[in-house]
Amino acid sequence: MPELRKDPLMGRWVIISTERAKRPDEFLPLAPVLPETEPDCPFCEGNESKTPPEIMAVRPAGLAPNSRGWKVRVVPSIAPVLRIEGKMERRPQGIYDVASGIGAHEVIVETPQHLPSLSHLTQEQIQQVLEVTLHRMTDLEKDQRFKSVLLFKNVGENAGSGKTQHARAQLIALPVIPVRLKDELHGANQYFQLKERCIFCDILRQELDAQQRLAVETSHFVALAPFASRFPFELWILPKGHAADFTKMTPHEKGDLARILQWTFLKLSRVLKDPPYNTILHTAPYRRAKAGAWRTIDQDFHWHLEIMPRLTRVAGFEWGSGFYINPTPPEEAAKFMKEAGVPVMSRG
Amino acid sequence: MPELRKDPLMGRWVIISTERAKRPDEFLPLAPVLPETEPDCPFCEGNESKTPPEIMAVRPAGLAPNSRGWKVRVVPSIAPVLRIEGKMERRPQGIYDVASGIGAHEVIVETPQHLPSLSHLTQEQIQQVLEVTLHRMTDLEKDQRFKSVLLFKNVGENAGSGKTQHARAQLIALPVIPVRLKDELHGANQYFQLKERCIFCDILRQELDAQQRLAVETSHFVALAPFASRFPFELWILPKGHAADFTKMTPHEKGDLARILQWTFLKLSRVLKDPPYNTILHTAPYRRAKAGAWRTIDQDFHWHLEIMPRLTRVAGFEWGSGFYINPTPPEEAAKFMKEAGVPVMSRG
Repeated sequence: MPELRKDPLMGRWVIISTERAKRPDEFLPLAPVLPETEPDCPFCEGNESKTPPEIMAVRPAGLAPNSRGWKVRVVPSIAPVLRIEGKMERRPQGIYDVASGIGAHEVIVETPQHLPSLSHLTQEQIQQVLEVTLHRMTDLEKDQRFKSVLLFKNVGENAGSGKTQHARAQLIALPVIPVRLKDELHGANQYFQLKERCIFCDILRQELDAQQRLAVETSHFVALAPFASRFPFELWILPKGHAADFTKMTPHEKGDLARILQWTFLKLSRVLKDPPYNTILHTAPYRRAKAGAWRTIDQDFHWHLEIMPRLTRVAGFEWGSGFYINPTPPEEAAKFMKEAGVPVMSRG
Repeated sequence: MPELRKDPLMGRWVIISTERAKRPDEFLPLAPVLPETEPDCPFCEGNESKTPPEIMAVRPAGLAPNSRGWKVRVVPSIAPVLRIEGKMERRPQGIYDVASGIGAHEVIVETPQHLPSLSHLTQEQIQQVLEVTLHRMTDLEKDQRFKSVLLFKNVGENAGSGKTQHARAQLIALPVIPVRLKDELHGANQYFQLKERCIFCDILRQELDAQQRLAVETSHFVALAPFASRFPFELWILPKGHAADFTKMTPHEKGDLARILQWTFLKLSRVLKDPPYNTILHTAPYRRAKAGAWRTIDQDFHWHLEIMPRLTRVAGFEWGSGFYINPTPPEEAAKFMKEAGVPVMSRG
């Protein structure tokens, strides 16, 4: 019997088809075999001139910007979806609302080598990437025009990466709050009004107790398969302790986050054979946006990284209804993740 | 300069990249060339035994069910996502909500011939499909367990149709209200509280006045490219007069809806060369669900059919943020649609 499960935060119903449960090897191999190198990759060491001039980079002192020798490099997007220059204006157009297409669109290149995913990096490299990411997010907050920032990854062509398979994340700073985040903030706020507790903390309590849907656990973080997962092997990484703002991590937490990221992506690539995936970070909007209805954000919201392997096609039903059909119960996904031993790294 | 546009109903922001505007011929040809016939197609005339026994069919009197000679045929889904038998139960699981996976999942086969899309049918055929659809939707409402029904189409493999390209729609009756519909009902209700007017009627007034985003118009209906379109060539078909419930159309309106559907899909297939697409109907939930906050549904909600050609890949950014990037301004899409002459039908 299939089961209908409701996401406690968003009120979104999901069909978990427990009868037709899909094992990892039953998914179509959607991802093509990746080339080892790509001479024109704009993100490879040596091709620095193929991107706009860098915003920042981690490289030994004495080396010139936009030259070789870097570890992590941040560049403006070659095809920015928003423009950095200009005044932020909002105006009506009859009953509609329009705003200037102002925003920052940056690419964080995670490695100078042509490697496709985080799963190929060492913990030290991942921690370096995190440091750079946090630095950029904090820096962008200084721009008075921005209300929120989106950190996301498209890995593999089926996840929207385009042709270039080189490990990178993207940052988009926005003058508005995206609707999905707004819905989450609203859901968390509603729960807090009722219970005076953070809904994510309550979820974590239940999940740590039940153990059924935990995929990976470290001292400060868990990766869990959400109760109402929309997609097979959807995973959320959350801090165990309450924290609304991703940028406020301690150095010790950063190291531990690098650890759970490495373990999670290694396990995912082992279980699902390097699947295409998307990740998106949901963190509190910038300070200046925390007014009105969201003044309790620090208490009621809890940052988390959503990982969505792209194994199934999303059809019209899901698009139009927000009602997802998931052929892999999250309990099964967590079990496969737990059983996948983490191989010893050969690189780095 | 790209423009940020806010959907007035959902509060969803969309980036319209006016500078990198894409013309119809710039989209990747995502759809494969379709086979003319498919011997094993379970929806073709002569293959009636390949589906579960039919629920209803339009066929001349005297012919046996599940035999040849039908015009429109409704069968249970071969792979239903929900089960029709069983009691509806809702229960908690700690802080979570679970419901039995009860529901109806039916397939409306629109033609006995192996034709891929509505654009190949005559107006008379489309009207017959509409009659059958309305009959099934009304019949499913009698089941006390159901709160809403979703009518949708996945046309083309990139839209989730699977291998079989035979024109059909799907109906899923649900014991819950899907979150996207709930969000729309909520948005419409909020607007009504403020203005004491239907938001869709206000949108229609502005669009009929501006003419810029109208793609097709008949006596009772319009097909328009929404101001904050998420996708290139996204189109919404709405009745010009206020109407919350799709099933309450007059016979005259049904004929006119068949007309605008035929014209819209013919123009779409001409402009975009038979694109893959999804459609979903958003109509008022069943009577028994119209309690509490939604008792003004009849006044504040307005049914509409959303048509979403699948021309671009949706990446992690869109998934996780609900913040869409659309490379074709709706004004451009409407212009191409208007300019596409409707060819004279050679079939039917």
